[in-house]
Order: sequence, then structure tokens, then C-alpha cells
Amino acid sequence: MNHKQKYAIIVAGGSGKRMGNEVPKQFLEVAGLPILMHTINCFFSFDSEIKIVVVLPASQHSYWNKLIEKHSFSIQHQVTKGGIERFYSVLAGLKFTDSDSLIAIHDGVRPLVSKKTLENCFATAISKGSAIPVVPATESIRKVHNDVNKAVNRSHYFMVQTPQIFQAEILINAYKQEYDCTFTDDASVVEKAGNPIHLVEGNVENIKITRPIDLKIAEILLQK
Amino acid sequence: MNHKQKYAIIVAGGSGKRMGNEVPKQFLEVAGLPILMHTINCFFSFDSEIKIVVVLPASQHSYWNKLIEKHSFSIQHQVTKGGIERFYSVLAGLKFTDSDSLIAIHDGVRPLVSKKTLENCFATAISKGSAIPVVPATESIRKVHNDVNKAVNRSHYFMVQTPQIFQAEILINAYKQEYDCTFTDDASVVEKAGNPIHLVEGNVENIKITRPIDLKIAEILLQK
Repeated sequence: MNHKQKYAIIVAGGSGKRMGNEVPKQFLEVAGLPILMHTINCFFSFDSEIKIVVVLPASQHSYWNKLIEKHSFSIQHQVTKGGIERFYSVLAGLKFTDSDSLIAIHDGVRPLVSKKTLENCFATAISKGSAIPVVPATESIRKVHNDVNKAVNRSHYFMVQTPQIFQAEILINAYKQEYDCTFTDDASVVEKAGNPIHLVEGNVENIKITRPIDLKIAEILLQK
Repeated sequence: MNHKQKYAIIVAGGSGKRMGNEVPKQFLEVAGLPILMHTINCFFSFDSEIKIVVVLPASQHSYWNKLIEKHSFSIQHQVTKGGIERFYSVLAGLKFTDSDSLIAIHDGVRPLVSKKTLENCFATAISKGSAIPVVPATESIRKVHNDVNKAVNRSHYFMVQTPQIFQAEILINAYKQEYDCTFTDDASVVEKAGNPIHLVEGNVENIKITRPIDLKIAEILLQK
């Protein structure tokens, strides 16, 4: 049994433009509650002792406070302001953690992560230093490069979800690197600092809500 | 304007095992109709002159006939029996086509292909010989090989859908090759025969129904 403090840094930087919507996607109501509240609930119901840090653009803090009041949302969390890239938002969240802990970084718009995915990722991060949930590709995949496309062996490819969980020391050290535009997620930052990344089976429902179709899918899955 | 005969070979080989269901997935009822009938409807409502060939395991033909009766399904189509691999099922379907036509090969469990995707794929296949619909990857991707995994540039990767549409001559020639286990779709067969594959923008709703979650998604999208 491991008694290290757990942190969840929940990053929600969306402005809502891709959804064709004025309300940033993390605030859209699904099954009666803003998506971001569903996401926070996932972590709190997994471990009520976890410390939650929510990273939001500064311009959205007052709107978030109004939503908290409207929904009488009572789960304690620290709110801090995000940066221009996800990398800087995570850096901002890391200020509220400590170096002898386990830190999960999660997308604010993934409200469907399962308890089992959380359990498995934390367990692997405890023993191996890092853990990210992945699911197999369900379609054939083509690689396009310099206008040429070719089939690749799809059994070699996995789709990456969050939470991406790390021993704090590894993560904090990795985030001392300069920002690089190839950093698409936390695993890529930690990997570039020379650490292996361990893969864990994710749950297929753990979708990232980015397109209107995702919102419809989340609506049914959250109503269950 | 192109007046070549169009064919749709709709391949439905599923046994239903992956869905945890006794009924093969192509026969599951969604929004009041078996999935395969929704799929046939997509092609018929796109072009009522298209010739439709449905490839089904021999053991399912009588069940299919009962469903046709039950739903008074009136869209004309040829039924033929499938092979042990998708490759052989497509070969079986090709026997009902002619070499001066355009042939679309489509998954029976993709009942959500849009008219626009069909239009664009047929138009590109007419001018360029081949066309397959693709959508961009929405998640980070990792490549796993020999137990090592690494991040790849996701902007280079596209998820492949169907219909995969070809000028008949190209397709029929490609299917004269010996079966190869790397043939995951028709594009990979045509590509191996030395032909370029042209990519067309697919519609994100055009999912392949393979997992229970896909069935729920299809249920909402087809009820619209």
C-alpha cells in the first residue's frame, strides 16, 4: 500500500471555438452539470483525499465561480490560471503540488474516465514512475508524409488518453525543459527528458469532448 | 458527368462475438431497423440506380431473409456468401460486378456514411481511380514495437473509413493477388498491386459499429 499524497491537475484551456459555441466546452452542461464538474467528480469519487488543482484561463475564473454557486458544487479544489500552451498550464498547476507525491494530469473535457482506469494508472505510476491509459486503434490507419500516404500496421498504434500519472519528481524535472512544439501531452514531455513511459489499458468511454458528436456521446454515457 | 454503372459491395461478416451478443452485429436493431438495412438505405438514397451486393456468411442467409420479411424491406440487392477473410468476401462480391464500372466496398456495420462522403468518394474515384474517406486522429498516438513505445506526430496519421471506391478494372486486377495477412482493407490490396490511393475527407459520424459503446452512439445518431 502506498500512502503518498495524490494530486490531480485538471487542465481546461478550451475557448469553445471548435464546438461552434460561445460557452467554453468545459462549461457546457451535460446531464445537468458542466462537463468540468463531472470530471472533478471522477477524481473525488475515486479518492476523496486527492488534492485537485483546476487550471483555467484567467478570463474564465469568475464564470466558473458563478457555476459553482449555481450548482452548489462543494468539492474543494484550487483554481489557478492557465498559460498560452498546455505545457505552461501544467507548469502553473505544478506549483501547487509537492515533490514527494503522485501527480495525475487530466483533460478537463474527459468526464468519463473510469475508476478502473484511475486505479490501474495510479498503481503503475507507483511501481514504475509513469502510466498513461491507451486504447487500441479500431480503424485502419494511414500515414501521410510529403503528400504520400501509405497503410501502416494498426496493431502497432494506440490512442492516448489521460490521466497521465507520474511520480512527482520525474514530472517536475521533465517540466524544467524548454517548451517544444512536439509536446502534445505530458508523456511526450517526460519521454523527452529521458524517462520510459508505461502504457495501461484505458476505458473506451474516456473520450475527449472536442467535436459536437462527442458532446452527444457524452450525454448518453453520463445519463446512465 | 459520368454514366458508369455504380456498384456497392456491402461486406457483413460479423458473428457478434465482440459485442457480447448472440445476434450478429449487422442484424442488431438500431432506431427500429437492423444496422445492415440502415447501411443499404445510405447507398440507395444516394443513388437509386446503384447495384447493391450484400456479402453475408452462408449461415446467416435465412435469418436475413426473415428480417427482410419482418421489416418489409424492399430495396433490391444481391446476396452472396462470404469467405473466411474479408479479402475472400470481397472477391465473392466482385463476381456480380462488371469491369467497366465504379465499385464501392463498404462495411455493413457503417450505417452512418453521409451523402457528402459518398459524393466526394465517387467523384475522386472517377477522376483518379481510387478514393477512401479518412478523418484526422483526435488523440495523441503512440507506436508500440518490440515492447518499446514512443510518441508519433499525430498530424501525419489518419483513420480510414469506408466506402473505399475504385474504378473496377483497378480493383479487379488488384484482387487477382494472393491473399496476404497485411490486407486490412481494400486500399491496402489496391496499394500492394502498385496503385496510388487517394484520400477524401470522411464524416466523423461514419463509425464502424464494433463495440457496445458504438451501438449506443449509433442509436442517437440514427434517431435524428
